[in-house]
This record gives sequence, C-alpha cells and structure tokens, in this order.
Amino acid sequence: MSFAATVLTLYPEMFPGPLGISLAGRALAEGKWSLDAVQIRDFATDKHRSVDDTPAGGGAGMVMRADVLASALDATAARNPGVPVLTMTPRGSPLTQARVRNLAQGPGAIILCGRFEGIDQRLFDARRIEEVSIGDYILSGGEMAALTLLDACIRLLPGVMGAASSGDDESFETGLLEYPHYTRPQEWEGRTIPEVLRSGDHARIAAWRKREAEAITRLRRPDLWERHGGTPGRSPSGARHEDWDDKS
Amino acid sequence: MSFAATVLTLYPEMFPGPLGISLAGRALAEGKWSLDAVQIRDFATDKHRSVDDTPAGGGAGMVMRADVLASALDATAARNPGVPVLTMTPRGSPLTQARVRNLAQGPGAIILCGRFEGIDQRLFDARRIEEVSIGDYILSGGEMAALTLLDACIRLLPGVMGAASSGDDESFETGLLEYPHYTRPQEWEGRTIPEVLRSGDHARIAAWRKREAEAITRLRRPDLWERHGGTPGRSPSGARHEDWDDKS
Repeated sequence: MSFAATVLTLYPEMFPGPLGISLAGRALAEGKWSLDAVQIRDFATDKHRSVDDTPAGGGAGMVMRADVLASALDATAARNPGVPVLTMTPRGSPLTQARVRNLAQGPGAIILCGRFEGIDQRLFDARRIEEVSIGDYILSGGEMAALTLLDACIRLLPGVMGAASSGDDESFETGLLEYPHYTRPQEWEGRTIPEVLRSGDHARIAAWRKREAEAITRLRRPDLWERHGGTPGRSPSGARHEDWDDKS
Repeated sequence: MSFAATVLTLYPEMFPGPLGISLAGRALAEGKWSLDAVQIRDFATDKHRSVDDTPAGGGAGMVMRADVLASALDATAARNPGVPVLTMTPRGSPLTQARVRNLAQGPGAIILCGRFEGIDQRLFDARRIEEVSIGDYILSGGEMAALTLLDACIRLLPGVMGAASSGDDESFETGLLEYPHYTRPQEWEGRTIPEVLRSGDHARIAAWRKREAEAITRLRRPDLWERHGGTPGRSPSGARHEDWDDKS
C-alpha cells in the first residue's frame, strides 16, 4: 500500500502544486504516493459555510471553529484508519529528519492546515493531533508547511530517489551538517578542487569529509554539535575552527 | 518599489505555485510583489545544457557546477543591484522571524535553489551568498524552501494582510509561542471557553494570555524560553507547568 497523504485545507487548489512536478510528481503519477485534498468548508453547517469566527476575549483576526474542523477530521480519519493526524503550527514540536523518516515508513499522514489567527484550542484537547512546526517563523497558513513536510517524506519513499544510496550521507542523517561538495571543472576562477579529493585514496577522502562535516557543524550549529556528543568549540578529531575558514 | 523575488531554479514551473493563490496570489496580481523564475539551465555552455557533474572524490548523486551557477547568479544580480542573494540549504543558518521581517523590509531576494547532492563549494567561496536553512530536515531541493521563505516574507509586505494589527501577537514576534485561541460555539462536546475570556475584563484577559504563552513556551520549547530570558522549568509570573496541562 502506498503512502496516503490527506490534506484538510481551505485551499485544496494549492495541492499538489510543486509536489506535482519533478521527483514527487513522477512518484505521484506512478502511484508511489496518493494525495487527497479535502475542502474544510464542505463540513460547515450554516448557510454561509463559515469555518471561522471572532476570537473569544477579543483581538485581531479570526479563529477556526473546533466543531467544523472536528467534523472534517473525523470523516477523514474514518476513511484512513491508523494514519497519524498532524497539524502544522509554529506552536508545534520542531520537525526533525527522524520524524520525517518515521512518517515515511508509515501508512501516510492526515494534515490539518490552519489559517487566520489559529484553531480553537478545544480541538487539540478533544482529538489526538500532533502539532508540528517546520521552523521558527510565521507562514500565511499551514498549506506551505504541509507541502514542505510531504516533500521531505516523499523523497524517502521506496523507489522515489534514483540511487537508493543517495541520501544516507546527507545533513542530519549522520547527526552532522554535510561536508562540502566539488565537481568539474577542475579549476574555476583560479580555485581548484582540494587535492585530497583527487587522490583516489578512499580512506583519506572519507576521513577528510568526516572532519569537514564536524568542523562546519561545530562552527555553524553548536546546538547540533552538542547533541552529536561533541565538545563545544572543539571536535574529537582535533580539527580546528580554522580548518573550515581556511577554505574561503 | 515593490518586493522583487527572483528564483534561480531547474524547475521554474514550480513558481508561483501555492504563492499564486490566496493572500500571496492576490498581492502578486496587485503588484505588491513580483516574481521572476530563472531557468538555471539557460546558463549552461555545452550542447547537453548540463548543470551538474559527478562529485570529486566519489560518492552518490550529482553536484551542481560552480561555473554555470555563477553565470546565472551574476546575470541576475546585475539586473537586481543591492538585492540580497540567498541559497536554501540544510547547512545554512536557521531561518528566524527576525530575518524574515528584515528581508521583507528590503528590496527583495534572489534565491538560488540547489538540487541533487549539493552545490560546488567554490561558488560560496567566490560569491557573497547567504546560506539559509528552513529546518533540520532534507527536502528534494531548494524550491520548497524558497516558496516557504517567500510566503513568510510576503505576508509582512505593506497591505498584504487584511488587518494591519494582525500578526503582532503571533508566535515568535513576542519571543514566545502564541497563547491558545477560542471562538464560538460557547460549548462544544461539553467543553467551554475559559471563563476569563468571557469576562470582558481586558487587563485580566491580557494577563491570562501572557501567562499561557509563557507556560506553553516553557513546556514545549525550553530553548526559546531560555533565549526569552526565562528560568528553565519556571516562569517569572509564577505560572506552573500544570497551568497548561490542566486544560487538556
């Protein structure tokens, strides 16, 4: 059974959008994943099909109603038993590559996209919904975050990436940022490819890449480096801060 | 002069995509921002129009060539003097709402979208390019990250959001996650809107919202809480962990 993505949104026309092109688009056409964009407004019960109302206690903007969203969610969940329900919100747990990998190995995802100021809190109190944040910034709605989450999952589905091995070395999969890449031409604007990469010595190349990955992680992301088990300001391999800077 | 977004990509057909709909789409139609999607392949110099090659030193996948990207970037930058150049990569600085706000106040952004394993490091050594990450996960390419960054910027442009005041209270703008929202109906599945929000007492409501925002930030994002100046595990207002949990 392929990965089933269901998105609850006020803008179903945003989907598949960029996911209908390139890798993800080809995989969608080949049935490696499926997409169902559900219009939340279809679950409104009044003649104006309203999905939102003014915030209790006052304030700017509108809040999405718990009753309408619960109807949309319950109907969707009934058609997709066992599929995790997520909502994209800056108040959620920061998305990690580990969570992406875990979702990609599962049956799919039901993703509720908020708009306006937010969603009535009682929905989260009454239903099991994982609140996920793709980063510490504010978007116009959950749709772009849902597209981002799905893009991250889809590339990990079986048969989607060309080379199965591609990806294992990438940032976060090793707990480190990725080492620098080089390709032809051999010389460009007077800059050459580092000698070690032309040596053909696979052990030396692997050691150099590991050292570079450690150095850039320590320099740019001390938070990741500490989680990786490194000492702040110094790498276990003895690579110095300057190893990285020297290249620029 | 309106915010000018230029995207360098192998998939110009992904743009504006979701940014052509709703708030951002209306603002695009009204000329509040502009979008130019440039095909990188048009700057290739060989008859196969190749933009990538195998990684120096071996390994899976392909690396984007510095020479082709530099040609594309230089031509674009010449047409957009003074516009910051960014590339979306998991090795970059994590995107923050402060950086989004800063970009939105500027003339626009030139965004280089990587694909494959990455971009030849010499491009970053030779050109002034800000490497930005939207989060600690891997996407199929920079396009989705560019769409996300632009969405965050566009909603802040003058006249894009309906109510100018909407947004000031949101997550991160205060350094805290946002307080919970409620709206009609007054009772849903036996759950009522908290009494304080029905009191009409604006000072009490503001104090409650501040306390709730502090409590959820401390509980869910101790990293943000510490940056905000809070003591780990305890809020300055004396709100306890359980204030938040009690509501569920």
